[in-house]
Amino acid sequence: MSLQLLYPQLLPRIESEIKVFIDSLDFGACDDMKHMIQYHMGWVNKNGEEPQRGKRIRPLLSLLCCGAFQSGVSKAVPGAVAVELLHNFTLIHDDIEDQSPLRHGRPTLWQKWGIAQAINTGDALFSIAQISVLGLAASCGENIAIKAATQLNDVCLQLTRGQFLDLSFEKAAEVQTSAYLDMIEGKTAALISFSTALGALTTGQELPVQNQLAEFGKNLGMAFQVQDDFLGIWGDPKVTGKSTTSDLTTQKKSLPILFGLAESSEFRSLWRQDTLSPEEVEQLTRILDSCGAKEYVRTHAEQYTTRAYEILDSVFPRRNNYADALVELTDQLLERKE
Amino acid sequence: MSLQLLYPQLLPRIESEIKVFIDSLDFGACDDMKHMIQYHMGWVNKNGEEPQRGKRIRPLLSLLCCGAFQSGVSKAVPGAVAVELLHNFTLIHDDIEDQSPLRHGRPTLWQKWGIAQAINTGDALFSIAQISVLGLAASCGENIAIKAATQLNDVCLQLTRGQFLDLSFEKAAEVQTSAYLDMIEGKTAALISFSTALGALTTGQELPVQNQLAEFGKNLGMAFQVQDDFLGIWGDPKVTGKSTTSDLTTQKKSLPILFGLAESSEFRSLWRQDTLSPEEVEQLTRILDSCGAKEYVRTHAEQYTTRAYEILDSVFPRRNNYADALVELTDQLLERKE
Repeated sequence: MSLQLLYPQLLPRIESEIKVFIDSLDFGACDDMKHMIQYHMGWVNKNGEEPQRGKRIRPLLSLLCCGAFQSGVSKAVPGAVAVELLHNFTLIHDDIEDQSPLRHGRPTLWQKWGIAQAINTGDALFSIAQISVLGLAASCGENIAIKAATQLNDVCLQLTRGQFLDLSFEKAAEVQTSAYLDMIEGKTAALISFSTALGALTTGQELPVQNQLAEFGKNLGMAFQVQDDFLGIWGDPKVTGKSTTSDLTTQKKSLPILFGLAESSEFRSLWRQDTLSPEEVEQLTRILDSCGAKEYVRTHAEQYTTRAYEILDSVFPRRNNYADALVELTDQLLERKE
Repeated sequence: MSLQLLYPQLLPRIESEIKVFIDSLDFGACDDMKHMIQYHMGWVNKNGEEPQRGKRIRPLLSLLCCGAFQSGVSKAVPGAVAVELLHNFTLIHDDIEDQSPLRHGRPTLWQKWGIAQAINTGDALFSIAQISVLGLAASCGENIAIKAATQLNDVCLQLTRGQFLDLSFEKAAEVQTSAYLDMIEGKTAALISFSTALGALTTGQELPVQNQLAEFGKNLGMAFQVQDDFLGIWGDPKVTGKSTTSDLTTQKKSLPILFGLAESSEFRSLWRQDTLSPEEVEQLTRILDSCGAKEYVRTHAEQYTTRAYEILDSVFPRRNNYADALVELTDQLLERKE
């Protein structure tokens, strides 16, 4: 209920702050580079239609955490903007590295403008994210800005470590589930962790509370990714909008699949075929059920989820509507049904 | 003479500070990513040979400027390290964007590890440069660190603008010399400008002096690039180590060539041929001489050079050995003979 009230207020605010910030920068004679950024951010309308874009979950988490500490959200805005821009810089480069032709149903930047210009525009967006986070000096003071910028760049290093592992896994004959969890911690959980911790940092909470909020975000990010892996095999496509068998047919190395590869020689030999028939995909799913993969993945998701809620309860025992909305958003992110 | 004394002291110091900083970072299970960075930086020895590497001119300029203000150079070190790392991040991405197979006589990162991993390692080095510049908070205080980090990222945005223009020029039928100068200001002069200004910022000089040092570096960078373009046509290969005709045979759009294209229809039609014989290259050089390109480029180089020396004389009227070395380094960079 609180989320239903706050989301329509905060989302346009976030979107507008990002747009205004981009507009404030000097692109000189490079209007086309600015246009590439606007296209990637989903601000370029074709035939008057609103293009699909990201849900801006990360800056939303920052502002909700900020408000949950009974503070106005304004002073966290430069940090929240930085988080979303940084996330989008990684998407631009990931799309090149993964050779993805589409994002939100539209051609990716490298598909439209070529690899060279797309790498370069990603770099520009990275710099812009940095300039934004340093803007916290004006709203929160220099000490907090230095801490936020340093943490953000530690996160960037974790992101590149995660991406390094992800790219390595594609070629690896064997991937341990522990290495996989390490990879998603870098690639997904680290930035969500920074997003939530930012709410504590910018409102001047003590270090232990900042660490708790970082821990909340990390567990939320891990739970979200593991749950996503679960739904990639056992999800109801009507609810998730995904094909139930997509992670098996695309031979993605997700958590249940890595578990199956490690535990079942039957799964291993069938999965390693070049192509899989619908019957074989069903058979693979049955093997995963019977070898304990479903239980293994569900247990992991539950552990992360439980920990995330525990921290929320401990840090915000008396909730305001921001804290309520934070719990509701966590519910939405984690409780997508099978 | 002063440079001969200071260079052997400062260069190993810079190299060691960069190495120690990289070693202090947590690469987790990604030793190979760290190895990629070490390879790119020229620290990986094969058969016991010292590999070729960059001259570390930018951090050297920072430390010389720092010392020229009668200050110890130590506190500027995190900034100088950041400048060199940032420069190297741009080289990794530029090599992909320009499809360059070699750098310092060795295969480029993308040639050895593929485009995806090379983009990602470049991003890691970008983050590492950011973490280093923020380390100025400990040596110079938070206010200076915020200013340095913000300026560094403004420079990054200028670098990407310069690279955007450079990539666009490859496909453009016509390029104005003014647009070319705009491009090299972003791609070459901006980071050199930041490197020299850092010496003023970290030693606590007033804003007008910081701006003068930035202006010195900008003119030094512009003079260096324009002089390089000059030598690309008229340089003595025995002195420059380049082929005299390389910029004509590779059909690079350098300043003299853009002038020739704009001023001489004879040059234009000959240059646009698919391949050029040695006789035609000689003929093109003669046309450039006679249409005023040589004079035009020399005049530009001299204007930037004169301005750079004027600023040095004005800011450091009473020289110490750092200021002397700064003048000598400027001499070396700009007075490479025809």
